[in-house]
Amino acid sequence: MSDSASGNPLRIGIAGLGTVGAGVLKLLTQQQDILAARAGVPLVVTAVSARNRQQDRGVEIDGYAWYDNCLDMAEADDVDVVVELIGGADGTAKVLVENAIAAGKHVVTANKALLAYHGQSIAESAEAKAVAVGFEAAVAGGVPVIKGLRDGLAANQVERIVAILNGTCNFVLGLMEEEEVSFEDAVREAQDVGFAEADPTTDIGGFDAAHKLSLLASIAFGTQVNLDAVLVKGIDSVAAEDIEAAKELGYRIKLIAVADRNGGHIIQRVHPALVPLEQPLAHVGGPGNSIVMQGDWVGTVEFGGPGAGEKPTASAVVADIVDIARGFQVPVFGTPAAQLTPAKSASEDNSLAPYYLRMELADKKGTASTMTGILAEHDISIETMIQKPEEDHELGANMPVIVVTYATRDTAIAKAIAEIEGAGILAGSPNVIRVESL
Amino acid sequence: MSDSASGNPLRIGIAGLGTVGAGVLKLLTQQQDILAARAGVPLVVTAVSARNRQQDRGVEIDGYAWYDNCLDMAEADDVDVVVELIGGADGTAKVLVENAIAAGKHVVTANKALLAYHGQSIAESAEAKAVAVGFEAAVAGGVPVIKGLRDGLAANQVERIVAILNGTCNFVLGLMEEEEVSFEDAVREAQDVGFAEADPTTDIGGFDAAHKLSLLASIAFGTQVNLDAVLVKGIDSVAAEDIEAAKELGYRIKLIAVADRNGGHIIQRVHPALVPLEQPLAHVGGPGNSIVMQGDWVGTVEFGGPGAGEKPTASAVVADIVDIARGFQVPVFGTPAAQLTPAKSASEDNSLAPYYLRMELADKKGTASTMTGILAEHDISIETMIQKPEEDHELGANMPVIVVTYATRDTAIAKAIAEIEGAGILAGSPNVIRVESL
Ligand SMILES: NC(=O)c1ccc[n+]([C@@H]2O[C@H](COP(=O)([O-])OP(=O)(O)OC[C@H]3O[C@@H](n4cnc5c(N)ncnc54)[C@H](OP(=O)(O)O)[C@@H]3O)[C@@H](O)[C@H]2O)c1
Ligand SMILES: NC(=O)c1ccc[n+]([C@@H]2O[C@H](COP(=O)([O-])OP(=O)(O)OC[C@H]3O[C@@H](n4cnc5c(N)ncnc54)[C@H](OP(=O)(O)O)[C@@H]3O)[C@@H](O)[C@H]2O)c1
Repeated sequence: MSDSASGNPLRIGIAGLGTVGAGVLKLLTQQQDILAARAGVPLVVTAVSARNRQQDRGVEIDGYAWYDNCLDMAEADDVDVVVELIGGADGTAKVLVENAIAAGKHVVTANKALLAYHGQSIAESAEAKAVAVGFEAAVAGGVPVIKGLRDGLAANQVERIVAILNGTCNFVLGLMEEEEVSFEDAVREAQDVGFAEADPTTDIGGFDAAHKLSLLASIAFGTQVNLDAVLVKGIDSVAAEDIEAAKELGYRIKLIAVADRNGGHIIQRVHPALVPLEQPLAHVGGPGNSIVMQGDWVGTVEFGGPGAGEKPTASAVVADIVDIARGFQVPVFGTPAAQLTPAKSASEDNSLAPYYLRMELADKKGTASTMTGILAEHDISIETMIQKPEEDHELGANMPVIVVTYATRDTAIAKAIAEIEGAGILAGSPNVIRVESL
Repeated sequence: MSDSASGNPLRIGIAGLGTVGAGVLKLLTQQQDILAARAGVPLVVTAVSARNRQQDRGVEIDGYAWYDNCLDMAEADDVDVVVELIGGADGTAKVLVENAIAAGKHVVTANKALLAYHGQSIAESAEAKAVAVGFEAAVAGGVPVIKGLRDGLAANQVERIVAILNGTCNFVLGLMEEEEVSFEDAVREAQDVGFAEADPTTDIGGFDAAHKLSLLASIAFGTQVNLDAVLVKGIDSVAAEDIEAAKELGYRIKLIAVADRNGGHIIQRVHPALVPLEQPLAHVGGPGNSIVMQGDWVGTVEFGGPGAGEKPTASAVVADIVDIARGFQVPVFGTPAAQLTPAKSASEDNSLAPYYLRMELADKKGTASTMTGILAEHDISIETMIQKPEEDHELGANMPVIVVTYATRDTAIAKAIAEIEGAGILAGSPNVIRVESL
């Protein structure tokens, strides 16, 4: 194996030459001089693999050994680091990473799905083989938050992370506000400009952010990656009316990812939230990512930048390769895999927060007073209530009402809403969104 | 020498037990379990030193070997890492660091002055001895920007850094705006609450920010640390009138530190600037720090958090100790010292920027037209001009005028201002502040 200690070049095999893979190849070529200086040894690509050798990737691939089957790369004598940029939680990507580790090769990957599902076993085998698994690119694209958390905040008990981790959702929510369009139209526009995939479910549904959050939580709390413990709600529940009402009330709706050390339990949740305009997270625009971390010694630290795209993601992948060339090797999640504790997942979040409720009160007498009465019974106080008929509101039509409560518990809100729904005073389902501050 | 490879504890000697040193001692004690897990070996303090052994430091020091002369620590057999927290560009701190390196010990320091003056020679000797010199705490306190830039952005040519690096100045400017007080009153208040030192010159004068900027620039551009190349102007030139006018015009005045790859020259400058309110840097409050970095692959990345104080600074110092325990060793400034190039310092910044000019026009006929005429002769166009007499303005009194120009060159402004001053139309000296965007 080659590393800085030996002075030999570090030999790299790249599996997957799509958006990120081709970017990595271009970067390694363009910056080879500064990379060699910083890494201490030349970084040399020796092998590449993808499905279709003929496809034009905007970068010359003739100079590298081509593997029709990328799994052969894991066995290649002239590959020190396997860079997995195929994607997918299972299938080829997983086998490639496992085989590479088994063969004593270092791994760099941008694959959050793979690590969210199999992070613990991958970390265990990598540590047993004393190889590195770098995944800076898997969370927040170009923003070096994995190193920032794992190395930069290594002296801290992390208390809480609140982040915007999915650029697609942030872009879509931004369009909904700026262009006053529906969720569906915003998604279509995001697809047109390349910020949403043809099948946007993984992003829109909050699953991609959940994958990323589960990795951050493991590093932050010294717990095993536990994707099942993440409560997930996507942005498809956010309507144009919510965006507008939030704005009027001094908030912006964001898909946020929260990991919280709540007593002995770790809370992990991804969902749309109303973020007060005073908070920096409210101002993360377009496809940007931002991560706010609170440590017991450092206080609150914030990282922000581009969360995806060819160039930022390649920047993060190559930074991991430089780490390996420099001989830097740490446990995959910062704490040795054998010492990571199971994340006791909380069934509910018992932290206090205000909630935003949007309801259509049915056209009957006393519906508003029934609704507020039920809230009061559950000790939920109302901070703001807006009852605003459409301009063309007709007598006898349903009445949209928006309530922002004072801080209360998740469970209280859930019970109150169930009771309100049962009381037959609503037309349609209410929309409930948590208000999140740091 | 002990490191993770050996499995033996990493033995630490702390020289200086003031704000930061005592904090480091407390942190190492409080977090010893998670630190051992993350570092791979226990981190054990074996020796401490300060001037006065009797002083109460809020932390027990009886369990450690006491050195009356901290220089003896550099020779101690049971010290693997010397943590220098004495301060000062020369004197004991310098000798201690040099001796520790010569004796083959790793060094961790929070001393930006020392590295700004002697960084190149310290890096050369550390690399010759294959020991680490960690200085995360020297720049932006708890914010892990050294690792973020050196490791996280290792794949990038950095194009530009714009940062707020001095918490004292940021706090003072914030007070001037919020409480509408004079510079002198704000400094006094900052001293009272512990955000400014008894002698605040190093902070207020911009020198501390210049020290920090020179270190960032070396890592960013692969150049030798060159403090002489930093153009420095402090915040003592900022008057209450400037703060007020900036606010009215949609800006906030900040002490900013800029490092720019301007063609073949590196520009480094620290000075007050008008930052547009749309920019995140305008919203860094209190003693906070923030660093915006632009790389050719990653795009724009931002880091923010507490720039000083016992706990954040100790967090950064201990993160460096963890790096050493993990066996992570890189050239001090990311690129080997022998390969760092001299920073060709630009005598002037030929980048374009708008400028803010505040002048008192003397009570004579035609002064305004003479002033605008001179600007026009130098191809400087006026974007906004506010001529606002005091409420109790008396006929015949001088007239305050504020001009914001369109983007122009430093040199053009300098010449125009000299001519305006020579024309005998001003009462007092004009105040010239650059407008800085990303
Ligand atoms: N795109 C981003 O901005 C971004 C950001 C962060 C993380 N990531 C992660 O990076 C990874 C790659 O994403 P991407 O956007 O680059 O995906 P992509 O553009 O779809 O590229 C996937 C690549 O994998 C190749 N491939 C598929 N199956 C293969 C197999 N069995 N053997 C060898 N190669 C195979 C494809 O080959 P062909 O080209 O021949 O079809 C293609 O080159 C994913 O894990 C993703 O989550 C992406
Ligand atoms: N304070 C911050 O927030 C902060 C933030 C970032 C970086 N830094 C840097 O951290 C360093 C330390 O700052 P600080 O605020 O902790 O300073 P400090 O409170 O003034 O402490 C300095 C310490 O050095 C000791 N000392 C002085 N001369 C000594 C000598 N010849 N031998 C041994 N010990 C000696 C003093 O001993 P006695 O206690 O016995 O007098 C004192 O304990 C400086 O380089 C500073 O720039 C500080």
